[in-house]
Amino acid sequence: MLYFYTDYMAGAHPEVASAMAKAGLEPHVGYGLDPVTENARKLILKACGLEKGAVHFLVGGTQANATVIDALVRHTEGVLCAASGHINVHESGAIEASGHKVIGLDAAEGRLSAATVERYLKDFYADETWEHMVIPRLVYISQPTELGTLYSRDELKALREVCRCYGLYLYVDGARLGYALAAPDNDVTLYDLAALCDAFYIGGTKVGAYFGEAVVLPEPALCPHFFSLVKQHGALLAKGFLLGAQFEALFTDRLYLRIGEHAIAMAARLRQALEARGYRLAVNSQTNQLFPVLPNAVLDRLTPLVGFEVWGVRGESETTVRFVTSWSTAEEDVEKLIALL
Amino acid sequence: MLYFYTDYMAGAHPEVASAMAKAGLEPHVGYGLDPVTENARKLILKACGLEKGAVHFLVGGTQANATVIDALVRHTEGVLCAASGHINVHESGAIEASGHKVIGLDAAEGRLSAATVERYLKDFYADETWEHMVIPRLVYISQPTELGTLYSRDELKALREVCRCYGLYLYVDGARLGYALAAPDNDVTLYDLAALCDAFYIGGTKVGAYFGEAVVLPEPALCPHFFSLVKQHGALLAKGFLLGAQFEALFTDRLYLRIGEHAIAMAARLRQALEARGYRLAVNSQTNQLFPVLPNAVLDRLTPLVGFEVWGVRGESETTVRFVTSWSTAEEDVEKLIALL
Amino acid sequence: MLYFYTDYMAGAHPEVASAMAKAGLEPHVGYGLDPVTENARKLILKACGLEKGAVHFLVGGTQANATVIDALVRHTEGVLCAASGHINVHESGAIEASGHKVIGLDAAEGRLSAATVERYLKDFYADETWEHMVIPRLVYISQPTELGTLYSRDELKALREVCRCYGLYLYVDGARLGYALAAPDNDVTLYDLAALCDAFYIGGTKVGAYFGEAVVLPEPALCPHFFSLVKQHGALLAKGFLLGAQFEALFTDRLYLRIGEHAIAMAARLRQALEARGYRLAVNSQTNQLFPVLPNAVLDRLTPLVGFEVWGVRGESETTVRFVTSWSTAEEDVEKLIALL
Amino acid sequence: MLYFYTDYMAGAHPEVASAMAKAGLEPHVGYGLDPVTENARKLILKACGLEKGAVHFLVGGTQANATVIDALVRHTEGVLCAASGHINVHESGAIEASGHKVIGLDAAEGRLSAATVERYLKDFYADETWEHMVIPRLVYISQPTELGTLYSRDELKALREVCRCYGLYLYVDGARLGYALAAPDNDVTLYDLAALCDAFYIGGTKVGAYFGEAVVLPEPALCPHFFSLVKQHGALLAKGFLLGAQFEALFTDRLYLRIGEHAIAMAARLRQALEARGYRLAVNSQTNQLFPVLPNAVLDRLTPLVGFEVWGVRGESETTVRFVTSWSTAEEDVEKLIALL
Repeated sequence: MLYFYTDYMAGAHPEVASAMAKAGLEPHVGYGLDPVTENARKLILKACGLEKGAVHFLVGGTQANATVIDALVRHTEGVLCAASGHINVHESGAIEASGHKVIGLDAAEGRLSAATVERYLKDFYADETWEHMVIPRLVYISQPTELGTLYSRDELKALREVCRCYGLYLYVDGARLGYALAAPDNDVTLYDLAALCDAFYIGGTKVGAYFGEAVVLPEPALCPHFFSLVKQHGALLAKGFLLGAQFEALFTDRLYLRIGEHAIAMAARLRQALEARGYRLAVNSQTNQLFPVLPNAVLDRLTPLVGFEVWGVRGESETTVRFVTSWSTAEEDVEKLIALL
Repeated sequence: MLYFYTDYMAGAHPEVASAMAKAGLEPHVGYGLDPVTENARKLILKACGLEKGAVHFLVGGTQANATVIDALVRHTEGVLCAASGHINVHESGAIEASGHKVIGLDAAEGRLSAATVERYLKDFYADETWEHMVIPRLVYISQPTELGTLYSRDELKALREVCRCYGLYLYVDGARLGYALAAPDNDVTLYDLAALCDAFYIGGTKVGAYFGEAVVLPEPALCPHFFSLVKQHGALLAKGFLLGAQFEALFTDRLYLRIGEHAIAMAARLRQALEARGYRLAVNSQTNQLFPVLPNAVLDRLTPLVGFEVWGVRGESETTVRFVTSWSTAEEDVEKLIALL
Repeated sequence: MLYFYTDYMAGAHPEVASAMAKAGLEPHVGYGLDPVTENARKLILKACGLEKGAVHFLVGGTQANATVIDALVRHTEGVLCAASGHINVHESGAIEASGHKVIGLDAAEGRLSAATVERYLKDFYADETWEHMVIPRLVYISQPTELGTLYSRDELKALREVCRCYGLYLYVDGARLGYALAAPDNDVTLYDLAALCDAFYIGGTKVGAYFGEAVVLPEPALCPHFFSLVKQHGALLAKGFLLGAQFEALFTDRLYLRIGEHAIAMAARLRQALEARGYRLAVNSQTNQLFPVLPNAVLDRLTPLVGFEVWGVRGESETTVRFVTSWSTAEEDVEKLIALL
Repeated sequence: MLYFYTDYMAGAHPEVASAMAKAGLEPHVGYGLDPVTENARKLILKACGLEKGAVHFLVGGTQANATVIDALVRHTEGVLCAASGHINVHESGAIEASGHKVIGLDAAEGRLSAATVERYLKDFYADETWEHMVIPRLVYISQPTELGTLYSRDELKALREVCRCYGLYLYVDGARLGYALAAPDNDVTLYDLAALCDAFYIGGTKVGAYFGEAVVLPEPALCPHFFSLVKQHGALLAKGFLLGAQFEALFTDRLYLRIGEHAIAMAARLRQALEARGYRLAVNSQTNQLFPVLPNAVLDRLTPLVGFEVWGVRGESETTVRFVTSWSTAEEDVEKLIALL
């Protein structure tokens, strides 16, 4: 069996796994107040070019999104995002469970444009009844998007500028950020994210850790009592040093980037082969997810041999599928998959 | 000045006003447990052909929607409605504030079709990841809709059937129900609503009362502790007899229908005149709201003389506006408006 | 039958009733944006000695408490109050429904002392684990308290000072405020409340209005988007002018104080008679509620003739009851009650 | 340095650690739908004597409590617990954040008695205004309690009976359950918990796992869509097999019990020594936590050499402290601590 189903099937990159195992052999103070975690924070702040920001380690992405948005957005306020955004579709209403409306906007290939956000806000405040409506307070995007596409630095700057004009926060979900940072098309660095966002998270779960997401708050005063809010959201790990140890490893010797680079190289090889064989790609994704449109005969032939996801609904004669690479994708397996196509 | 801005500008129909004033002269036990309110309940149940249902009087529509939906829908579950639905647009996120996602669907002229709901539900359960998504649990519609259009009995039955198949509740917001019941095109009676819905409310605020909405629960066991939930939502009026007295008046001597009939007659007269003068109607509304498209010159001429709402954004040369009639619309004022057009 | 059950049994003081009826004869713009309501706001601000504060009219007390607290308190934060406080006992968990913990503290005769609050806060921040606990952010008190007792100006100042030291807001529930302002023992004026509180409300429902509470925010910037939050809480009355008209009447010709004075005079007469007959008072209440301890034989004799509340549980030989006076209590009825005792 | 601070300082018992590391070497389907997790579920159901119950693995205790209570308790309903209960004190208001009031009751040594619960419920329903109050719907207890004490089977049965009479659920927080099961005084088995509770969880974080709690639902139909609710609460681990692998190890070869037995033996040795030296115990705890009262001179002498928690506030001459043993407590360290005392 070949595994291209998703990027969170295997445990952890060996360097992460051994760092966590090692940390577990010693006693530590709880809740991330230990020196290992403190060092991981420093490494991340340094990587982001931040001197005074805060870093909080949470266990998973839904938690991270719900906690950050709850910290920044009040009860009368809402969140703008791409209609396909993870918080709008695949988090079982976690944002609404904290009382915040999520407003999905049209977004080609999963990318929410500054123009779309600006038009929404302009129309909103032009409506005499706006005080009876949910007041937009935060723009949520993912880098890369749900469809593996990327925001450019200019697009990010444009979003930042719209947010500034209308008093909104900008928050970036970086569940797969490592694969964005390593993509050849990418021009958005951690420094850019730290400079342009009010909050973002650096994903671990899908990028080589067992689990864990590092929430970065460049301006911590925006989120008073964030530690307590993490606890309230059930997102505070008792043995926080397990998160610290993993992120310390990820930000040592460029591991986070090395993981991204490997997955991107595997995806590039696969994409090249798909295009060479004349398969159309449903989305022009730029990272570790590929969305080829396969004839149903090919799809049925692959199914018993390869793990992958049917994307949306099966078509009459052809169907969009998703192949995902990761730090654990073996070059040999990519070649085997190519041979099967 | 002529007033066609909305149907909740004036106080109360004289029969309602005097009933409430009279009730206020005597002491009553609080919270709607008094005999006046009890009698109003009986009159409404009778009008709905219900023997055992429950009726609760709340102060306003946003309260009523939030409380009923909170009673029927659990934290993991959501609400389907027309994208233009009142709960999705004009209630400041009151439903989400109770933790429930509102999912807006396309709906021509404000009417959500059974086919649209069915397609959503079919696609939803066909998606392998549905357990990560908000589970649809209730369909919310308004009769008449936000745009003054009506559901037919057949359309309502079709919605009921889809709800039955997929385990959803059907809830009807009747903020302007009196204007639907009195419309010539209408074939949905209170008996039908009682038979086809899990909950609905009979609007008072916009139909001749000072304030008040009567929530009807044909099967009260679906909403245990509803009284406490009304209290929790801040929707329990201490002097509940004020609501009882108003609804007692509305359901005596056909007053609720008489109010509707008057407003409908006024709207019909106005519509006829608009069509005779060649004005296009943006929506084929069937009740007490009309949406003519006026040349901007006409709009500007009317503005200092007539109260009305610009519907959406002003156009370059012509603009959609809204005229609303009510129990308090004088025939004389309609003729004056017609003369101005 | 004599009515001493509570102060919200009858409709409205005649001056309020006629003001509201009169306002209802004319059309008004909705949601409290009309000139009548605007004037009521001015009268209240003037009565409070405020030049720039905001006044919002809500329908009822549970709404008012839930909305104000939701505006001031964040998700990780909680509310301190007397264990007997209305929000802690009799609002069906409305505060918790918005996500805020209510922490009830011991309070003799319903009065929460600054010393009690200070001890709680001192112990709280002395506890190493405080960041895992709900952070106290607001002190809620009622004037008069649930038991009809009063805070003195010095007690209020002391609470204010503790709040200032520890970064808490001070909020006063004035459901029966008129009866406090008129009490001979009282030295807390509306000016004092405006100077010492971050928010308070002037109760109408229990003090002569049909319904309605005026929330006063001396520093409106503390509650951004308060209008939207009122809407979200279902507390925005469509025909807001009904509230404006009632409060305009209450704050014209000293009506609010006259109502209080009458009720206090009736209570004083009754108290004098109770003491003359040797009945013990369970609480030394200073306003319009009296809590005599009656032998069960007396209680049983009164029950068919007088409406009153058994306070708590019936005792073996004697039982605490509550008699309440109001603007509508007739002197004649007080004398009849005294004759029966 | 000797470590008696708490039982979640070290990583994981070697058998758990190696099981998790091994599981991480293979790809697995996500969200706990893999065969390893399925096997862990079977082992736990077997250990509980359940044929048809459900087991869900969550990451931490606050999550587990918030999710289970949110599944069982509606918006108008509340939770009864010991005033010292973890959900009432140390979870940053997580239960209230889901809209549920927590009502803390007096409980000697952390044990909530059936008599206390019954008296509360009896008084509650005897109060005429109960529909304005939060309706008690669930009793929350911990086994062992926050103070290390135990409920006997008879006490648990009595609580179950009160719950049955008044329509409440019984839920047991088993964060430290392994230490209860292994205690000599204990007569409550997993079979008993499965028979007497509507839900309980078997704690991993404090009993030898890196992290993880196994929620057991003997009657899964009580909690429809529990999986989605876990997701909504941010408590669904993407790599669920990490939880499955750890619990598979804990329920293989009696490991969960062996861990408990070791900690209990260490605590017994320490207790014996404390008593022999004449130290008073503030609580008669029966499990792995000891609460000796130390003269301040002893406390100050120990502080630089031993990690332990000051329990509450330092006294004038003597102070209560807490020593905790766990699977990782070395016998040698206990002897060293005894030597220091």
